[in-house]
Amino acid sequence: MKTKKTSLSGKASPTVGDEGMWTFDNPPRAILKRRYGFEPSQDWLDHLRLSSVRFNDGGSGAFVSADGLVLTNHHVALGQLHKMSTKEADYVKDGFFARSASEERRCPDLELNVLVSLEDVTKRVLGGVDPKASDKTRNEQRKAVMARIEKESTEKTGYRSDVVELYQGGEYWLYRYKKYTDIRLVMAPEAQAAFYGGDPDNFTYPRYDLDFAFFRAYENDAPVRPQRYLRWSASGAKEGQLVFVSGHPGSTDRLKTVRQLEFERDQHLPGYLNILGRRRRALEEYAKTGTEQERRAKDAIFGVDNGLKAISGELEGLREPALMARMIEQEKALRRAAAKKGGDPWAAIARAQVKMVKRHKQLLYRNFMLSKLAGFAGTIVRYVEEVKKPNEKRFKEFRDSALESLNFRLFSPAPVYKDMEEAVLADCLAHSLEELGPKDPHVKAALGGAAPAAKARQLVAGTKLDDPKFRESLVKGGAAAVAACDDPMIVWARKLDPVYRELRAWSEDEIESVESLAGNEIAKARFSLYGKSTYPDATFTLRLSFGRVAGYEQGTTQVPHKTTFFGLYDRAASFDGKPPFHLPEKVERAKGALDLSTPLNFVTTNDIIGGNSGSPVVDAKGEYVGLIFDGNIQSLVGRYAYDDVQSRAVAVHSAGILEALRRIYGMDALASELLG
Amino acid sequence: MKTKKTSLSGKASPTVGDEGMWTFDNPPRAILKRRYGFEPSQDWLDHLRLSSVRFNDGGSGAFVSADGLVLTNHHVALGQLHKMSTKEADYVKDGFFARSASEERRCPDLELNVLVSLEDVTKRVLGGVDPKASDKTRNEQRKAVMARIEKESTEKTGYRSDVVELYQGGEYWLYRYKKYTDIRLVMAPEAQAAFYGGDPDNFTYPRYDLDFAFFRAYENDAPVRPQRYLRWSASGAKEGQLVFVSGHPGSTDRLKTVRQLEFERDQHLPGYLNILGRRRRALEEYAKTGTEQERRAKDAIFGVDNGLKAISGELEGLREPALMARMIEQEKALRRAAAKKGGDPWAAIARAQVKMVKRHKQLLYRNFMLSKLAGFAGTIVRYVEEVKKPNEKRFKEFRDSALESLNFRLFSPAPVYKDMEEAVLADCLAHSLEELGPKDPHVKAALGGAAPAAKARQLVAGTKLDDPKFRESLVKGGAAAVAACDDPMIVWARKLDPVYRELRAWSEDEIESVESLAGNEIAKARFSLYGKSTYPDATFTLRLSFGRVAGYEQGTTQVPHKTTFFGLYDRAASFDGKPPFHLPEKVERAKGALDLSTPLNFVTTNDIIGGNSGSPVVDAKGEYVGLIFDGNIQSLVGRYAYDDVQSRAVAVHSAGILEALRRIYGMDALASELLG
Repeated sequence: MKTKKTSLSGKASPTVGDEGMWTFDNPPRAILKRRYGFEPSQDWLDHLRLSSVRFNDGGSGAFVSADGLVLTNHHVALGQLHKMSTKEADYVKDGFFARSASEERRCPDLELNVLVSLEDVTKRVLGGVDPKASDKTRNEQRKAVMARIEKESTEKTGYRSDVVELYQGGEYWLYRYKKYTDIRLVMAPEAQAAFYGGDPDNFTYPRYDLDFAFFRAYENDAPVRPQRYLRWSASGAKEGQLVFVSGHPGSTDRLKTVRQLEFERDQHLPGYLNILGRRRRALEEYAKTGTEQERRAKDAIFGVDNGLKAISGELEGLREPALMARMIEQEKALRRAAAKKGGDPWAAIARAQVKMVKRHKQLLYRNFMLSKLAGFAGTIVRYVEEVKKPNEKRFKEFRDSALESLNFRLFSPAPVYKDMEEAVLADCLAHSLEELGPKDPHVKAALGGAAPAAKARQLVAGTKLDDPKFRESLVKGGAAAVAACDDPMIVWARKLDPVYRELRAWSEDEIESVESLAGNEIAKARFSLYGKSTYPDATFTLRLSFGRVAGYEQGTTQVPHKTTFFGLYDRAASFDGKPPFHLPEKVERAKGALDLSTPLNFVTTNDIIGGNSGSPVVDAKGEYVGLIFDGNIQSLVGRYAYDDVQSRAVAVHSAGILEALRRIYGMDALASELLG
Repeated sequence: MKTKKTSLSGKASPTVGDEGMWTFDNPPRAILKRRYGFEPSQDWLDHLRLSSVRFNDGGSGAFVSADGLVLTNHHVALGQLHKMSTKEADYVKDGFFARSASEERRCPDLELNVLVSLEDVTKRVLGGVDPKASDKTRNEQRKAVMARIEKESTEKTGYRSDVVELYQGGEYWLYRYKKYTDIRLVMAPEAQAAFYGGDPDNFTYPRYDLDFAFFRAYENDAPVRPQRYLRWSASGAKEGQLVFVSGHPGSTDRLKTVRQLEFERDQHLPGYLNILGRRRRALEEYAKTGTEQERRAKDAIFGVDNGLKAISGELEGLREPALMARMIEQEKALRRAAAKKGGDPWAAIARAQVKMVKRHKQLLYRNFMLSKLAGFAGTIVRYVEEVKKPNEKRFKEFRDSALESLNFRLFSPAPVYKDMEEAVLADCLAHSLEELGPKDPHVKAALGGAAPAAKARQLVAGTKLDDPKFRESLVKGGAAAVAACDDPMIVWARKLDPVYRELRAWSEDEIESVESLAGNEIAKARFSLYGKSTYPDATFTLRLSFGRVAGYEQGTTQVPHKTTFFGLYDRAASFDGKPPFHLPEKVERAKGALDLSTPLNFVTTNDIIGGNSGSPVVDAKGEYVGLIFDGNIQSLVGRYAYDDVQSRAVAVHSAGILEALRRIYGMDALASELLG
């Protein structure tokens, strides 16, 4: 791994307070020293990086024992718990407790990654692009060289290798990951304890959630002895303490232009909320039809609710005139700096946005969101076509370096619930018809004149795509097998494929190419102003954030830096135990045994966002003091801009996890393993 | 008592939801029946009225036992606790616990009133006013007839008799009160338990305050056997329950014109905050000089902080454009209705406002707020002059019917702290000088060219007004004694008196007369629209409000209808026991003995405001289920308009009081007395 000991430039950072999702090659050394008198050693950084784990289905985690124990959030584990549950054994509802190695259960399709090295490949990527070529050609060239780098690296090292675009195309880095795919579930609390307070308390603080779950990584059927892991702090986070979060923030939009933000505010986010709201109603209707249906839909409903609340918060933030005014000012400064060098990437992006608006409804409503079967069908049809092309010409997700992980997900034995699939697909089809009209090519291909409900019934009833072996046989059989296949969903996906490809090509050539290349120009302007004294937008790659454990003022009173088990029982009693504030039996029973003053959750000023779920919070010694699981409602605007007045990251306290393991769940061996 | 069984008119009420501070002659029978299916009997109403008690220094309470036990808030009792405390025995800090009748301690100057009858005297008051006379003359006539009615009633019945102006002069009622002046302190918790969370948590909910105190009324040295008292509900308030509050809301401004509200928003409230903020700083400076000084200033600082937070909340409400827009719409409707009958009282009030603005700074800054000695001096100088006049020509506060209560307060043996007096008076003088300049007649008379601090020192050092006997001798000695007196503060007050009288006469003749008489015109317009299907602004007279026990949504989550003792210990632990979130020793010690799930505080939709503190919350059976002690921050705008989205009244739960008496304070006899 190559890291630079200091920033590339001594220029003043444009960040405020504890802002920043810093790459591990460029930690904010100057800020840390100035604000906190802290100077991390290279080993400190390496230790934290190598202990950090990416959950590829969208979260973070960390190694917390010498025997490969991995700790993340319950809600990151939820997808796996759900896939492993049946009508008879509901691990989501009842929790899961392996009291010996033999009881640890292998997850169907969970992949963990550890970032073993990072290398700057900016020169090679940009060197492969002809600056005089058209936008479309340059975009193709850029992608081709990225694909070549990834393939070479995978072949040479055996590691999963991703070229990551940072600073809107200002830098390109090769990230190499060690992959783990034999991951076994060790322990998860009941969903009601983990997600206490349900959707109302989501993004809320004060909070009282045991949002944690333990896995163990295996290789060759034996627990992994990880290169590094985090030592447990039994006393955990304290008020005012300097803490770090090492995790994988999914995406932020802090470097978007004002025009792009306006598009988000006025078009994209309202449209997305429309889709989520509609899908929520469909899932709810389905869940109402029975207890088993309710169980099946639970994971999806959680995801949709979470999305609805998060996006509403972001939208509210964007509608705040003060925020937009700040963005406009920042952009003006940047534009002035760029103007001196000629060129106007902002105008180029604005022109692309005008085009985008015209086809935005298609981009939004030509989707089958939450339908697993439609997803399988589309992926398989494209898969067999794409892999025939040279690696660098393929869609990104079908490049050689990505196929192993893709297969792992695509051939997963996780159950597919056909009745729920039918309900979801019918809703997708009806919504597309409603929003795009019967003449839209996607709608025509998808419905073929049939009514949405009837079409969904026919497709789902007839397909065998719920069988992972069937999916595998199609991929293995290649284009010929898929072309010859008469499974109704494959036939249907073949019809949809040209429509999909046309829109995607348009989007890549007309929009993405402009935004990426113009973004590169803007990044250059930013470099000329700030050097590398700032950090790139989040990209679901490993980042370091710093901050302090701190409450805040709200509604003229003070919100404490932490909560305790007393508060959990208060909230339950305050609502007379009504859902979603009831207590699971084990928690109710443990009331007398617990030290109720033990810290349960706490808040910090760290700069995080979705994808950071499950990230470790460590102190200056690098010890594990907490587990990130949420941001408060005021932090949602963080997608666009950081502030530390009320925005807080919310974490489970390490002392609270220990107390729960021992006194609620009787998992003493696990607690002992944590304490080493 | 005369009451009307139905509203005067069947017209639709302009109130919303559970709105209204209804007079006991006009309960909202139609609304109660429609919304809650509840029809109060006359005896139900009489029982509640006769059990209700007014604390004349600004609060409410109720008889809760056959032996004259009176329950109110700790913060209503605070003034008396403070006056009864010394450096050696600090009942504010340590609480007070009488464990037998002999330990009950008489309060220095606490007067309680019970409303024994109400009588409509509108015709007589308005009949005494010549409609053709000038505003000034009409105002004098109006006051004269009110004074006559009061005097006659007092002479005839022996009761304290007040003519109350309702509906901005639309109605006048004679209220007769039974007075109690031998009030003894029975029990008060530690201030830190009663006012848990201090100023930050004031007007906040969720809340965890034991804000209660018990007194006992005596007559002829024996406990009073009150005509009526409220039965205690051991289980107390429940979610969704219909509840009533019977108490004495101090003042609201819901019938003010838009022009008057604008004046409040732009001139009066900001000015008032300015004064409070400055006085706060002076008190704080003083309190910092020692532990005993801190104790002496505590009550005053509490009052100022409370005022600052309340007024800030009101101001924020008035600055809400939506609220003002609603007020403008309502006024338009009223004005259209009034226009048909000719006359434009709104224009008259607007003209008075223009005049008001010119002398507003004098009205604001010619004051000695929080200086007890300056208050005594001014009152005594005016007292002896006023009582020489015929009763009906006097300032309201010196009418015969008011003198007994005035003497009670004026000759109170409560301590006066000269060092604190000096600090406060110096600040008053400096502020007047700063805001009004050295040429203002008040400033000239008050300072006589001296510096504020020196003047305050000279006045306070030389005066004997801290001695209640001296004050009494001056009043008894009358005008001659006061004229001959060479006490420096009396000499000084004589010099200030003409300046005071000039401003007060101007204010009464030019502003009050117009506002009162024009208000009467507006009230007529309201009657023509709504009949008596509405209620008058609050006037610190007995009112009935109704509502339900209900949580609310806030910040996308749910706020529970109640809190429990669990929450109290959570909040203390969450702040690591730091002030103002620390626990008094008795509370800390009781942790293991308490049933922590016992309800502590709860919220209702009842329409209340300052003055309602200490009001009983009763259920439909008339049983005592809670004790009003606050409104949440969202309720502060209630001064101008009621809404029930988030605005809530906050109460101590009757089960929580019982649990605290038994398990924290060991007051089992008191608990038994409550349960009869």
